[in-house]
Amino acid sequence: MTGNELSQYAELDLDRLRRCGFPEFIYGAGKTADQIAEIMRRLDREGHPALATRVPPEYAERIRRELPEAEYDPAARTLCIRRGIRPREGNVAVICAGTSDLPVAREAVVTLEICGYACKLIPDCGVAGITRLLSKAEQLRRADVVIAVAGMEGALPSVVAGLVPSPVIAVPTGVGYGASFQGLAALLAMLNSCASGVTVVNIDNGFGAACAAVRMLNHLRSSDAV
Amino acid sequence: MTGNELSQYAELDLDRLRRCGFPEFIYGAGKTADQIAEIMRRLDREGHPALATRVPPEYAERIRRELPEAEYDPAARTLCIRRGIRPREGNVAVICAGTSDLPVAREAVVTLEICGYACKLIPDCGVAGITRLLSKAEQLRRADVVIAVAGMEGALPSVVAGLVPSPVIAVPTGVGYGASFQGLAALLAMLNSCASGVTVVNIDNGFGAACAAVRMLNHLRSSDAV
Amino acid sequence: MTGNELSQYAELDLDRLRRCGFPEFIYGAGKTADQIAEIMRRLDREGHPALATRVPPEYAERIRRELPEAEYDPAARTLCIRRGIRPREGNVAVICAGTSDLPVAREAVVTLEICGYACKLIPDCGVAGITRLLSKAEQLRRADVVIAVAGMEGALPSVVAGLVPSPVIAVPTGVGYGASFQGLAALLAMLNSCASGVTVVNIDNGFGAACAAVRMLNHLRSSDAV
Amino acid sequence: MTGNELSQYAELDLDRLRRCGFPEFIYGAGKTADQIAEIMRRLDREGHPALATRVPPEYAERIRRELPEAEYDPAARTLCIRRGIRPREGNVAVICAGTSDLPVAREAVVTLEICGYACKLIPDCGVAGITRLLSKAEQLRRADVVIAVAGMEGALPSVVAGLVPSPVIAVPTGVGYGASFQGLAALLAMLNSCASGVTVVNIDNGFGAACAAVRMLNHLRSSDAV
Amino acid sequence: MTGNELSQYAELDLDRLRRCGFPEFIYGAGKTADQIAEIMRRLDREGHPALATRVPPEYAERIRRELPEAEYDPAARTLCIRRGIRPREGNVAVICAGTSDLPVAREAVVTLEICGYACKLIPDCGVAGITRLLSKAEQLRRADVVIAVAGMEGALPSVVAGLVPSPVIAVPTGVGYGASFQGLAALLAMLNSCASGVTVVNIDNGFGAACAAVRMLNHLRSSDAV
Amino acid sequence: MTGNELSQYAELDLDRLRRCGFPEFIYGAGKTADQIAEIMRRLDREGHPALATRVPPEYAERIRRELPEAEYDPAARTLCIRRGIRPREGNVAVICAGTSDLPVAREAVVTLEICGYACKLIPDCGVAGITRLLSKAEQLRRADVVIAVAGMEGALPSVVAGLVPSPVIAVPTGVGYGASFQGLAALLAMLNSCASGVTVVNIDNGFGAACAAVRMLNHLRSSDAV
Amino acid sequence: MTGNELSQYAELDLDRLRRCGFPEFIYGAGKTADQIAEIMRRLDREGHPALATRVPPEYAERIRRELPEAEYDPAARTLCIRRGIRPREGNVAVICAGTSDLPVAREAVVTLEICGYACKLIPDCGVAGITRLLSKAEQLRRADVVIAVAGMEGALPSVVAGLVPSPVIAVPTGVGYGASFQGLAALLAMLNSCASGVTVVNIDNGFGAACAAVRMLNHLRSSDAV
Amino acid sequence: MTGNELSQYAELDLDRLRRCGFPEFIYGAGKTADQIAEIMRRLDREGHPALATRVPPEYAERIRRELPEAEYDPAARTLCIRRGIRPREGNVAVICAGTSDLPVAREAVVTLEICGYACKLIPDCGVAGITRLLSKAEQLRRADVVIAVAGMEGALPSVVAGLVPSPVIAVPTGVGYGASFQGLAALLAMLNSCASGVTVVNIDNGFGAACAAVRMLNHLRSSDAV
Repeated sequence: MTGNELSQYAELDLDRLRRCGFPEFIYGAGKTADQIAEIMRRLDREGHPALATRVPPEYAERIRRELPEAEYDPAARTLCIRRGIRPREGNVAVICAGTSDLPVAREAVVTLEICGYACKLIPDCGVAGITRLLSKAEQLRRADVVIAVAGMEGALPSVVAGLVPSPVIAVPTGVGYGASFQGLAALLAMLNSCASGVTVVNIDNGFGAACAAVRMLNHLRSSDAV
Repeated sequence: MTGNELSQYAELDLDRLRRCGFPEFIYGAGKTADQIAEIMRRLDREGHPALATRVPPEYAERIRRELPEAEYDPAARTLCIRRGIRPREGNVAVICAGTSDLPVAREAVVTLEICGYACKLIPDCGVAGITRLLSKAEQLRRADVVIAVAGMEGALPSVVAGLVPSPVIAVPTGVGYGASFQGLAALLAMLNSCASGVTVVNIDNGFGAACAAVRMLNHLRSSDAV
Repeated sequence: MTGNELSQYAELDLDRLRRCGFPEFIYGAGKTADQIAEIMRRLDREGHPALATRVPPEYAERIRRELPEAEYDPAARTLCIRRGIRPREGNVAVICAGTSDLPVAREAVVTLEICGYACKLIPDCGVAGITRLLSKAEQLRRADVVIAVAGMEGALPSVVAGLVPSPVIAVPTGVGYGASFQGLAALLAMLNSCASGVTVVNIDNGFGAACAAVRMLNHLRSSDAV
Repeated sequence: MTGNELSQYAELDLDRLRRCGFPEFIYGAGKTADQIAEIMRRLDREGHPALATRVPPEYAERIRRELPEAEYDPAARTLCIRRGIRPREGNVAVICAGTSDLPVAREAVVTLEICGYACKLIPDCGVAGITRLLSKAEQLRRADVVIAVAGMEGALPSVVAGLVPSPVIAVPTGVGYGASFQGLAALLAMLNSCASGVTVVNIDNGFGAACAAVRMLNHLRSSDAV
Repeated sequence: MTGNELSQYAELDLDRLRRCGFPEFIYGAGKTADQIAEIMRRLDREGHPALATRVPPEYAERIRRELPEAEYDPAARTLCIRRGIRPREGNVAVICAGTSDLPVAREAVVTLEICGYACKLIPDCGVAGITRLLSKAEQLRRADVVIAVAGMEGALPSVVAGLVPSPVIAVPTGVGYGASFQGLAALLAMLNSCASGVTVVNIDNGFGAACAAVRMLNHLRSSDAV
Repeated sequence: MTGNELSQYAELDLDRLRRCGFPEFIYGAGKTADQIAEIMRRLDREGHPALATRVPPEYAERIRRELPEAEYDPAARTLCIRRGIRPREGNVAVICAGTSDLPVAREAVVTLEICGYACKLIPDCGVAGITRLLSKAEQLRRADVVIAVAGMEGALPSVVAGLVPSPVIAVPTGVGYGASFQGLAALLAMLNSCASGVTVVNIDNGFGAACAAVRMLNHLRSSDAV
Repeated sequence: MTGNELSQYAELDLDRLRRCGFPEFIYGAGKTADQIAEIMRRLDREGHPALATRVPPEYAERIRRELPEAEYDPAARTLCIRRGIRPREGNVAVICAGTSDLPVAREAVVTLEICGYACKLIPDCGVAGITRLLSKAEQLRRADVVIAVAGMEGALPSVVAGLVPSPVIAVPTGVGYGASFQGLAALLAMLNSCASGVTVVNIDNGFGAACAAVRMLNHLRSSDAV
Repeated sequence: MTGNELSQYAELDLDRLRRCGFPEFIYGAGKTADQIAEIMRRLDREGHPALATRVPPEYAERIRRELPEAEYDPAARTLCIRRGIRPREGNVAVICAGTSDLPVAREAVVTLEICGYACKLIPDCGVAGITRLLSKAEQLRRADVVIAVAGMEGALPSVVAGLVPSPVIAVPTGVGYGASFQGLAALLAMLNSCASGVTVVNIDNGFGAACAAVRMLNHLRSSDAV
C-alpha cells in the first residue's frame, strides 16, 4: 500500500536545477495536502524556493498551519516559499485581455518571481477596444518577453505579436462559455495565429508560460551576459 | 427512379421572394450540371435573377454552353444570370484578412450584386499588421453593414466590431492548416468574440453573410425609406 | 499583487458608446462581486446605463446591498441599473422554442431594454407543433428584427427565416442532454440553416443577439430616420 | 494468404432471412469487385434477391459484364439482382429536404423494393419553405412508415414527426459544408429532435433506414395479418 | 417579465394526441417545479395522462404535496399521473446490458405504461456473458418491438438485432467513464451497427425509445387490427 | 418496478471464472450501495473473491457495516473481500509518471492481488526526469508484464516499451487540465506510440490493465507450467 | 539539405532486437521509396528480417526492381524480406468481423510471420450473425493469443473476450462511414469493452497488435520454456 | 472582380521588419502561382529576402521560369530568394523523431536560414530508442534554442526539455494515422508536457517554430550583444 513516506509517492528530481535552470515545481492537483506540504518542506530544506500550483484554498490553509512561511495567492491559487529566490536581470510583460483572465496572469507573475524575474502586469486590454492596446505598444516593445493571456476568441497574442519584435508566449484561458469549450476556442485561435512566431502553452497554464520565459531569459540573456 | 423532369428532383419555392425578400438560390454542391441548368433556366423564365453557388469549373463550362448568358466567377465558383437584378440603395463593406480568403469574400460580393447592392471589397487586412486595418476604419464606419472574412485565428471581426457601430457579420474561412481544422478554429473564435454584437455564419459561407446583409438592408433601411 | 483599485484589474472603454453605439457591458463570470459593483458604479457615474450578465444570485444579493438601485432578473441572471436608458424606435421579436429556453430569451430582452428598445417575447413555439409557430407568422413579419432562441435540434430559426423578410439572429441554447453536447447540436444546426441569411451567436448568448439587433436598429433604422 | 475462394474471405449467414426477415446484404465498400460478384452470385443461387450498396461505378460496370442481370443505380450506387423479390403489403414515404439528398433517398427506395415494399419518394421539401412540406402532410399521414432524409441542419424529421402518428426514421446526410462536418450537424440535430419518438440511423444510411422500416412492416403489420 | 401564468411560459399543444397518437409530455429539465406542476395539472384536467421526465427528487417531493396523485419513480426520475391511461394491445421487451443502465430502461418502461402498453424488462444481459443473452432469444423474438439499452461499448443492439426479426430501438446510456465520453462511445457504436435496421435515439433517452415503439404499435399494429 | 431482489437487477455470470480465468467483478458506478453489497455477498458465498471498483467512500462505509470483512482502499476506491484468493506465480511492475497518477495505479495493484499476483509499484517516474526512469530499467526488464500509468502527455509507455521485451500495457489517466481533456491527450498519445507493441486500455482503467495482465499470466505462463 | 546518405535521414536502432525481442521495423508512410529500400537493405545485411508497412503499390514495384527478394502483400500493403526469420512456438488466432477488415488482419498475419509465429486467420465473423462466432469458440480458446479485428461498431472483441481466457488484443478498423468517423467509433467501443482485460491498439494497426502478441509470446511463453 | 494588380489582392506590410524583426513572409496555400510570384518579386525589389511556404511543386516550377533565382526545396515545399539574407550569431538545433517528420523540420531549417541563422538538423531520434536521444544530449545543451519535431505520440519535446536549460519549441506533425487525427494527438501531448516551459506551435508549422526562435535570438541574444 502507498504509505506516507515521501519515497512511497514521489521521487524528487533535485538535479533539475542544474540540468534545466529551475528547480522541480509541484503540480498541486491530485495530491493530498500532506503530500504537498512534505515536498515543499523537502525543497525548502535543499535551499530551493518552493512553488505549488493549483492548490485549493482549504489545502493552503491547512498547509500554512504547518508551514507558516508559505504564502498563498488566492487568485493564482499558488502556494510558495520564497526563501532561496535569486534575483536576476530581465523583464517580462504579462498582458491580459480581460479582468476574468487575471488569475491565470497572476500564476505567471508568481512563477516569474519565484525564478527571480520582475514583471509588469497589464490588465484588461481586449482587442475590442484596440486603442487601449495600442497605448501600451511602447511598453510592450521594451519587454524582453511578452506573455499574452486571453480567453474567448484569443485574439490578443496575434495583435501583440504584430507590434513587437520580442518572443510572444500565448496563454489561452477558460474564460468564456458555450462554444469556448473551456478555452479550446482560444487555444485553437492562438495556434493558428497569423502573426509569425507566436508560441502557445496549455489552457490556463500561466505557470508554463512563465517557465518558458525563464528558459529564454536564463539561457539566452544571461549566457551572453557572462 | 428519379427522372430528369424538374418535378422529380426539385420543387421550386417561387413565393420566397415575396415572403423573404430574395428569390430561391441554388446550392450547387451535390446537384448534377443538368439539374443546375434546369433550375437556373426556370428561375430566369420567372423573371428572377439566378445564382448558383459552389459550381465546379467543369460544370460551369458545360452549363454555359447551354446558357451562354450565365457568368462564371472562377474564384467565387458562382454561376449567375444577372437579368432581373433590381438595383437598391445601401452599401456593404466586405473586408478580408488575407489574400487566401478572397474566394469567400468574392462569393459574398457576387451575392450582394445579384440582390441589387453594390459593395466595397477590402483585401488583406489581417490583424498582425493592425495599422493596415486602422487605416480603413473611416471607410468601414461609413458602410451600412460590414462583412468580415477571416481564416486562421479569425480575429478580424472582433477588432472591426470594436471600431464601428454597424452590424458586423463574421465569416470564418477554411484558410489555415493543422489545428485550424478546416476553419473550425476561426469559427469558434468568431462565436466567442469579445466585441458585443458580432454574428456569425458557417465556414466559407460568403453567400449566407451576403443574404444576412440583404435582409438588414431590405427590411430595415428600405422600410424606413417608405 | 492585483489590488482592489479599479485600475488594477480593469481599464474601462468609455469611448465605446461613441464608436459602437452602446456602452461597455460587464461580463460577470469570473469577476468578484466587488469588481462587478465597482464597474457598475463607475458606468453609472458616467451616465451610462449599467448591465452585468451571468451574475450568480448570491453575488447579486451582495451587490444590491451596496447598489439598491440595481435590479436583478433571476431567470436571465442579469443585474442592471436602468438610469440613463434612452428609449428608441424599433421593435424586436424574441421567439423561443421551449419553456426551458426562457432564461436565454430573457437575457436578450433585458439587454434590448437597456439599449432603449422594446421587444415582444413569444414563448414555447417549438417546431414539433408547427401550427403554434405558423399562428405567430404575421406577428413575426411585423418585427424589425427577429431573435430565435432554441436548444435541442435548433430548428426554429430555419423555419422562422423561411417565413419572414427581416434579419433573423439565431441563439442556440444548452437545453437538451446527451448528444446535445451542451448546445453544440443546436449551434451546428443553426450554422447549417438551409434558410438563407440566418446569422448565429454563441450558445446561450442572448446578450450578444440583442447587441447585434441593436447594431442593426441603431445604425440602419435611425440613420435613415435622420 | 487470403485466397480467392469465397470461404477465405466471407462466411455467408444464409439463415439470416429466417431469423431477421431479410437476407444478408452486401456492404460494397472495402470489397473487391470479384468479392462482390461472387457473393451476389451465391445469394442469387440460394434464391435470395441480392443487393450490394456503396458500389463504385467502375466496379458495377465490371461486375455487370459477368452478371448482366444485375441492375446498377448510379445515384444510389446500388447494384441488385431483383430475382426472388416477394412483393408485400405496406407503403413507405421517403421524403427528402433537398435535391442533393436524393442519392441517399434513392438508396432507401432501392432497398425497400428489394424487400418487396413499394414506396413514394417526395423530393425537395426543406423546412425553409414550410408550405411545400405542409402541402404533403396528408400524403405523409397515410404512409405506414415515413423515412425523412435531410442534410444541413437536419430539421425535417422534427417537423414531419409533429405532423404524423406513424414511425419516423430520420436519415442525416452529408449534404452541407463547413460546420456540417460531413453530416454530423444533421445527425446531432436528429438525435435531439424535440418531436417525440423519432429514431435515427447513421449518416447517409438510406439502406439502414429502409431495413428498419422493413422490420416494422414485416413484423408488426403482417403478424397482425395472421 | 415572464410571469407565472401558464401562457407566459408555455403554449400547450393539446391537439398533438390527435395528430401524433400521444399527448404532449413534459421535459422537466430547465423548468421550475411550479411550471411542471401547472402543466401536469392542465394536462390532467384535459383528460390526458401526464408524464414529466428528468424531474429531480426535491422537485418531485414539492410537486407531490400539491398533486398527491402524481407518482414518482426515483430510478427513472419520472413523475406521472396515470389517470386517463387507455390500455392497448402490444408488447415491448426492454433489455439492458448492465445493472447501471436500469434507470434509462425504467424511463422507457414508465413511458410505455403511460401510453397503455405493458412491457417486459430484462436486466443485466451484457455481451461479455453471451450465454445470458442467448437464453433470452426466444423471449425477445416474441416481442413486437425490442428496446435495447446499453452503455460502455454499446454492442447489445447489434447482437440482439441479429437474433430477432422485430424492430430494434437502440438506446445508448452514459454508463462508463473516460473514453465513453458520457455515452458518446455507445451512441457511435449503435449508429454503426453491422446488424441491418437498428435505429437509435439520443443518449439516455429511454423516453424517446418508448415513444418510437408507441408510434410503431399505435400506427402499424392497431391500424391492422381495425 | 425494479425490486430489491438480486434477480431484478443483476444476473450473475458465475461461469465466467471457468471461461475467462477470473470471476465477475463489480463495476460500482451507477449501482446503489445495497446492490453492491448484495452482489459481493453472493460472490463471496460462491467462494470467489469479490472486488468492486469505483465505490464512493460513503457507500464503502455503509457496506462495511454489513460486510465488515470487506476492505476499502480510499485511493483506489476499491472495495474487496479477499477470502478465496489463490496465490499464483508471476510478477507485474506497475510504474506511474506522477504522484497524482497513484490512485489509478493502486486500482491495478488491488485487482492484481485479488487475482493472486504480487506486484511492484514504482511511483513518480515521469519522462521529464529521464534518469529516474533509466535507473529502473533493470527492474522493469525483470517483470513478466509492465503496466505503465500516465496522465498529461502520456509519454511513459513509449519510453518504457523501448527498454523492455515484455508486454507493456498503457493506462492513460485524467491527470492534467485544459487540453488534456480529462485524459484524452494521454489516451491518444498512447494509441500512437512509436514503440511497437504497446496496448492501451480506457482512461483511468487500472482495473482493466490488471485484468489484461492476468489473462497473459494465467493463460501463457501457467499453461506452459503445466 | 537532407542528403541521400542513410545517416542523413535515419539512425537505425540495431540494438532493439536485444532490448525488445524484435528488430526495428519500417513505417513506410511519409518515406520515399529510396529511403525504404535503403533501410531494408541495411536490416537484411545485419541479418534481421525486414518489414515495411503502409507501402503504396507503386513504391513496392519500384523497390522490388532493386530488391527482388522482397515480397509485397497488396492487401496488407506490406513489403518484407523473410530471410532471417527464426520460427518459434506459439499460435495466434486473428479473427475479423467482416470481409472489408481483411487488409488490417493481413497486416497482423504478415507481422507475426516475420517474427516467427504461425497464425490462423478467421474471416467474416461479425456479431450480427452470432452463431458464426460461437462455432469458432473452441478454436479461439485453443489459441495462445487472440487478435480481434473489427470496424463499424467494434463489438467483436467484447464478445470474444467473454468466451476465452487468453489475452485479447482489439484492433479497430476504419471500415464504415458517417458516424464511424474513420474508425473512431470502433476504437471508442473497444476502449469501453464491458469484457474485462481487453487491450486496444490504434485504428488499422494490425502491425501493432501483432507486435503486442509477439511480446507476450516471446517473453512469457518462452521464458517459461527455459 | 478581383484583378491581377497586387493592390487588388494584397497589401504588403513592409514595415514589419522594423516592428517585428523579420519581413513579411508568404503563406503559399490558397494563393495562385501568379500572386506568389508577384509578392516575391516585390519583396525582393524592396531588398528583403523572400520566402513562400506550402508551395506545390507545379507552382514552384512555373514561378521559377519567371524567377530563376528562386530556390525550391521539394521536401519543405518552400520557395525562397536568398538575396538580402543578413547572417547573424546564434545557433538552433532542430531535432526530429522520425524520418517521416523531416519535411517539417526542413521547413524550420529553411526559415532559419532566410533569417540569417545557421542550424543543426538531428534526424530520427524517437523516444522508443532513448539511447539515440541521450547520445545527443550534450549537442542539444549547447544550442541556443531547440526545436523538437515529432508526430505520433509527440513525446520528444518532453524528454528533450528535461535534458536542457534552453527554450524548447515543440512542433507536432501529422505523421501517424488513425487516432493521430492528422497530428492532433501529438499536438495535445505537447500542450500537456510534464516538462516545464515547453511551448508549442501549430501542427506541421516548422515555419512558425523557426520564427519563434528568431524572435528569441534577435531580441534577447543580440540586445545583450550590444
